[in-house]
Amino acid sequence: MQTRINSERLWNRLMQMAQIGGTAKGGCDRQALTDLDVEGRSLFATWCRELDLNISHDAIGNMFARLPGKNPALPPLVIGSHLDTQPTGGKYDGVLGVLAGLEVLQTIGEKAITPDRSLEVAVWMNEEGARFAPAMMGSGVFAGMLDLAEIRSVTDSAGISVGEALDRHGYSSGSDPTAKDMHAYLELHIEQGPVLEAQEKSVGVVTGAQGIRWYDVTLAGQEAHAGPTPMSLRRDPMELVPDLVREILEIGKIDPDARATIGQFQAHPGSRNVIPGSISLTVDLRHPNEETLSNMHDRLTGHVQGLSEICAGTSAELRQIWHSPVVEFDDDLIRSIRMGAELLGYSHLDMISGAGHDSLMVARCVPTAMIFIPCLDGISHNEAEHIEPEQAEAGANVLLCATLETLGIAIQA
Amino acid sequence: MQTRINSERLWNRLMQMAQIGGTAKGGCDRQALTDLDVEGRSLFATWCRELDLNISHDAIGNMFARLPGKNPALPPLVIGSHLDTQPTGGKYDGVLGVLAGLEVLQTIGEKAITPDRSLEVAVWMNEEGARFAPAMMGSGVFAGMLDLAEIRSVTDSAGISVGEALDRHGYSSGSDPTAKDMHAYLELHIEQGPVLEAQEKSVGVVTGAQGIRWYDVTLAGQEAHAGPTPMSLRRDPMELVPDLVREILEIGKIDPDARATIGQFQAHPGSRNVIPGSISLTVDLRHPNEETLSNMHDRLTGHVQGLSEICAGTSAELRQIWHSPVVEFDDDLIRSIRMGAELLGYSHLDMISGAGHDSLMVARCVPTAMIFIPCLDGISHNEAEHIEPEQAEAGANVLLCATLETLGIAIQA
Repeated sequence: MQTRINSERLWNRLMQMAQIGGTAKGGCDRQALTDLDVEGRSLFATWCRELDLNISHDAIGNMFARLPGKNPALPPLVIGSHLDTQPTGGKYDGVLGVLAGLEVLQTIGEKAITPDRSLEVAVWMNEEGARFAPAMMGSGVFAGMLDLAEIRSVTDSAGISVGEALDRHGYSSGSDPTAKDMHAYLELHIEQGPVLEAQEKSVGVVTGAQGIRWYDVTLAGQEAHAGPTPMSLRRDPMELVPDLVREILEIGKIDPDARATIGQFQAHPGSRNVIPGSISLTVDLRHPNEETLSNMHDRLTGHVQGLSEICAGTSAELRQIWHSPVVEFDDDLIRSIRMGAELLGYSHLDMISGAGHDSLMVARCVPTAMIFIPCLDGISHNEAEHIEPEQAEAGANVLLCATLETLGIAIQA
Repeated sequence: MQTRINSERLWNRLMQMAQIGGTAKGGCDRQALTDLDVEGRSLFATWCRELDLNISHDAIGNMFARLPGKNPALPPLVIGSHLDTQPTGGKYDGVLGVLAGLEVLQTIGEKAITPDRSLEVAVWMNEEGARFAPAMMGSGVFAGMLDLAEIRSVTDSAGISVGEALDRHGYSSGSDPTAKDMHAYLELHIEQGPVLEAQEKSVGVVTGAQGIRWYDVTLAGQEAHAGPTPMSLRRDPMELVPDLVREILEIGKIDPDARATIGQFQAHPGSRNVIPGSISLTVDLRHPNEETLSNMHDRLTGHVQGLSEICAGTSAELRQIWHSPVVEFDDDLIRSIRMGAELLGYSHLDMISGAGHDSLMVARCVPTAMIFIPCLDGISHNEAEHIEPEQAEAGANVLLCATLETLGIAIQA
């Protein structure tokens, strides 16, 4: 079959979805399991039902829309991503992968081709980790990397648990997330970085992903009144901040592939005229080489251990809350993506994913690969996130091509 | 008359008031114009009415309880402080001064003495500045240092304005805050610092107060995804933090009388895997010498101006939001306090106030002085704030003595 999706239909759906939780600055706030997130999923389900796709969900809130194959007993080929966003997120991160997946199923359905195995679109629950940590929650439970019961007890900043949110939206009664079998998994995503744009390539053939480690750091001292307490008698945890922040940012610069980010930073109790009793901050370390990431971890751990010596009466504690090891994708799927880009005449580049994706979890138990397209200035997790319709089209066409190749359906350029 | 207040009655009232907004750790959370703050004021009003004191309030929510003098046309001698607390505040900061004032009026009333001029207890609105900034709001409007209309439009973190909160509790219909005339003003307060305790003195004779400057600092860069954005392409405002925090804390150490505090510190949007688009923090600078404080201001201003050179694409902005100049108290009142301490045999020390107080505002238009008593480890703005009943008694007795002296009533030790 010919390998072109309907670009205009894909773009229209992207724009419709963006209205749900749309922000004044043109971004989206559709955090996991909020009413807006569920509204977005309902819109997606409406489109699926119009195409007679069968919709199901599992007990962690992952959704699946199925185009049945000739032999429904065969494990399906799954295409997916997520619909939840950051608090000040963009319109394409995750959403593109889900709607391009739907577009691939619709395109194949319109050609009246019925593949041997079923095709599914997956909407993974809480990829972002913004409302509930950790990220990639739905795909993590699916892959057996996270425990359903433990994850249900995770709470958001308002004290609402994942379990309560799943109950509220009727997801808890879904199937066992770990029982699902898949033949292979493909995901299209915006790069969320500046590499493709800088190298003027249309398609990234993603061969694997950075390892990620997340930490909570707590600096503690003695809360006291800002005016009468002489500097020499203070136990101010702020005294530890210059050294700690400098060291974290330097760990991120040990080589060009390393990354270090302090995303959350808060002084408590947070009053102008009160010396903070404690300071909490988060650290996100990444590297595509597992050994180097481990060295970064050791350097951070060592630094925090010695930190309280800077100021008597203070303490510093580091807690690793998550570790996603380096991931290598499936060679056959990588080849099918590279072949698709070549066949369609798109410039392409083999690359490593710097961001976390559901694919990193799914790859633990299912042959997996990813396709990237560039985004403007490499910006994402930001309301200014932007792509052009032709860029979305290129990615979705390559996704269609790789899907057909994996299903063993003959392809025409 | 004899100069002894009823210590047990004073202590019982302190403990009763502490139950309103009492925290699990033994402190108080009774922030300005909250329902709990108003509940505390109602309890105070109940005690005043039992003594036949006349209660009035002005349009910024300051309350006055009056024991009429022989000549009601004479401006009253006012004793006061505040009942609002920090979010994790103590039981004595402000409350002691109000309830000791009540105790002084009750003691004089019980002796069937009617002074020539009226005596009043003032409860100033929002001394702490925790919910609504700036601090010393009620006394500031009274003294003409703050504008009522402007202050009414100040909002808390939930977006509720001072005006809305005043309306809600029926204070907006009160009298013109600036129209009130006073003969003199006295305030008893815990030291909120470690000096009296370290020097083993019972009473601080406060001769003036530190100047204070408050600032908002905003560091701005470019919000982006933590994973795929190479360190070299980031515009991370966190890069400015080590230098800025170190410089602020060093400004606080230029001499032993200087103070510098970073009480609020927050990264935005505050997600683990998002490079912050901006960072906001507050700076509180204090010094008892106006010229030195001005030098500290200049050094901070200069540093922030050059800060963005550290990292291309970032910016740093400093905004002074408040300046309370150095204050010198009234010589006659200072003498009457010192004399009271000597007469009653309490060890005493002349000192400068490091904290902000309503007295600093009132002193702009009324002869004013303050009395300090020690507090445990100098700790306040903290749930662990602690004083002993004998310490409260000493302060209230000196307050009574200074009141009688100022009213021209003969004193017996």
